Amino acid sequence: MRRVAVVGIGHTQFVSGSPKTQLELLSEASMDAINRSNLKPKDIQAIFCGNVLGDFSEGQGMIQSYLADNIGCFNVPASRFEGACASATMAIRDAYMWVASGAYDIVLAGGVEKATAMGTALATRTFAMFHDARYEYPAGFTFPSFFAMLTHLYASRHGIALKKLKEQMAMVSVQSHEYGIRNPHAQFQKEITVDKVLNGFMVTTPLQLLDCCPFSDGAASLVLASEEVAKKLTDKPVYIAGVGQASSGKLSSQYKYLPRLRAREISVKQAYDMAGVGPDDIDVCELHDCFSIASIIAAESLGFADFGKGGELWENGGTRIGGKIPINISGGLKSKGHPIGATGASQVYEIVRQLRGDLVDQGRQVEGAKVGLVDTLGGDGVIVNLVLKSE
Amino acid sequence: MRRVAVVGIGHTQFVSGSPKTQLELLSEASMDAINRSNLKPKDIQAIFCGNVLGDFSEGQGMIQSYLADNIGCFNVPASRFEGACASATMAIRDAYMWVASGAYDIVLAGGVEKATAMGTALATRTFAMFHDARYEYPAGFTFPSFFAMLTHLYASRHGIALKKLKEQMAMVSVQSHEYGIRNPHAQFQKEITVDKVLNGFMVTTPLQLLDCCPFSDGAASLVLASEEVAKKLTDKPVYIAGVGQASSGKLSSQYKYLPRLRAREISVKQAYDMAGVGPDDIDVCELHDCFSIASIIAAESLGFADFGKGGELWENGGTRIGGKIPINISGGLKSKGHPIGATGASQVYEIVRQLRGDLVDQGRQVEGAKVGLVDTLGGDGVIVNLVLKSE
Repeated sequence: MRRVAVVGIGHTQFVSGSPKTQLELLSEASMDAINRSNLKPKDIQAIFCGNVLGDFSEGQGMIQSYLADNIGCFNVPASRFEGACASATMAIRDAYMWVASGAYDIVLAGGVEKATAMGTALATRTFAMFHDARYEYPAGFTFPSFFAMLTHLYASRHGIALKKLKEQMAMVSVQSHEYGIRNPHAQFQKEITVDKVLNGFMVTTPLQLLDCCPFSDGAASLVLASEEVAKKLTDKPVYIAGVGQASSGKLSSQYKYLPRLRAREISVKQAYDMAGVGPDDIDVCELHDCFSIASIIAAESLGFADFGKGGELWENGGTRIGGKIPINISGGLKSKGHPIGATGASQVYEIVRQLRGDLVDQGRQVEGAKVGLVDTLGGDGVIVNLVLKSE
Repeated sequence: MRRVAVVGIGHTQFVSGSPKTQLELLSEASMDAINRSNLKPKDIQAIFCGNVLGDFSEGQGMIQSYLADNIGCFNVPASRFEGACASATMAIRDAYMWVASGAYDIVLAGGVEKATAMGTALATRTFAMFHDARYEYPAGFTFPSFFAMLTHLYASRHGIALKKLKEQMAMVSVQSHEYGIRNPHAQFQKEITVDKVLNGFMVTTPLQLLDCCPFSDGAASLVLASEEVAKKLTDKPVYIAGVGQASSGKLSSQYKYLPRLRAREISVKQAYDMAGVGPDDIDVCELHDCFSIASIIAAESLGFADFGKGGELWENGGTRIGGKIPINISGGLKSKGHPIGATGASQVYEIVRQLRGDLVDQGRQVEGAKVGLVDTLGGDGVIVNLVLKSE
């Protein structure tokens, strides 16, 4: 199959309470991506779009079809993907295949969400639909409560005092906010401290407010092209070198394996193997930090730390620029924000910028980064991973 | 790219008020498809699933992940596709690419919906989300009202008296019910007459109750495999020879072109060209008869009749077994039923059975059928077409 490159990227501001519709947000990000690819809408041969709650937040299904019409990609095939928070990454992986196979030369892939209009409580309930609705939700599972349970489980399995673990988790959030300040697209532009995290509002024991990412409104889009086309369009193509995806189904059914997620270990191995790399080759990573504990769990399954040792990465500065493996230098979901169906595309956007060396001016460039990893977790254990390379 | 075959199929009863959950329905159809392929769940490498209203009808998103877990396809990549009524056909087209490209040898594709639990009025409102929510829905568009408008427009554009057109439309419904009686999966198993259609309850002028398909609960699934694998599994593989897809966006923005849908003409041309066939080569067709007028409009764009002459096909018996182009010999959406996210997979199921010659016992086999066409319309002008061949 052919090599596939990202040739253009677009990203809206991530905010709470955007006055724009989903269609406006996605059109803005998509037109930016097309323009920055030195292309026109008529060059786009197909659209792949992640969106989760549009039916609820705006009473608008199949946003992809209206996007095609709105930005002038008339009558192209346009598909919507739903895999909860991993929807956009799922769409991008699929778009990759349509270009790699030779079916299309140039496609648009991205995602959008307006999650804040309904308010946090209703959004939390609505989003609990991405747990198992028959057994898990009636048993009290929402995502905050599930990750709270994982925190206790993590502490217990690894023999770490909860107090110690919570300090490590607080450091995850503190680092995310520190880098988020340097990202002009980020929803939160403020410093926080470990003390502030530990003494914040208790959402669900032991997760406090600043352990949790926000709901957000926003969109991100990419233009993908075959290698041949990419070389004509840009001198900085970034290649999708490896893709992986796995679904676990009900997380509660994996109780013996948790807090590890088997789907992540399977998915990232696919992506690493396909790209011919391992965790030691990754220069920069955007991973799914929906809760601070989620970062620690993810870092371990991605191969950056031994199981039970993920928190030490943040404690020792290993996840900072200049550290062993810079993680979420965008601010991550915690500070940059988490517009559910857009998050995966935003992660790819960030890694592409790192691999192009675009972020020097923002003071958050990982110098010489050549290989990047994207990790997105959707609802009950859908994982999509992408390995990107600058050459 | 490699040839891709359908090697196994599964289909639940289509009903109103199913006591089963979506997961149970989809698992039933999927296990049937896997068993009939002489395979085991562990042989399935990926899942592609259409589902539209699951978040509303059951509070259950990303059904595909729970399906994977429920039937024992542990940790495979599983993606959900949403393109309104065309969701399952969209999923199947995408599954086709992952096999054709060589990425996978054996995959499961299908769809499911439980649309009746919320009642017809609420389902109609909910489904109106697959119009444009910002301009069309507030202007009074629901799908019945939109197709009512198309009926008036069709009569006006083609200079046909509405009375005459309504008689032709009634014949579409009468034929669907006649064949539906012979399909054990069909929701309606009763004969109707032209008189009964014309004197029925008026839903939205000029569409009467029996011009409209019902909401339904049900699921259908297929196993797709590479040609090499297919030949080992079955002596009756049916190949996906051509695929097409196009999105029009807001139908109201196409007012100069309507009642024709440009997306359908673009999509079916892709499928025909790829398969190296034209309308005259099609032996049997399942098309999207959400309303009786929709059948007439579709038959013309698919190339089976001149524009303005589609109704005559039904009037003259051309759409019956033995006619010029047998259409909806399953009973179609009208009589077989329309579980939104499952409909495309059900259409493919029916064409596969026709091309295998499986329907003699049911008294609805199109003798010697070798080439079949599937046509699915989703919401505001998403069209997916598939050409299937028995050799």
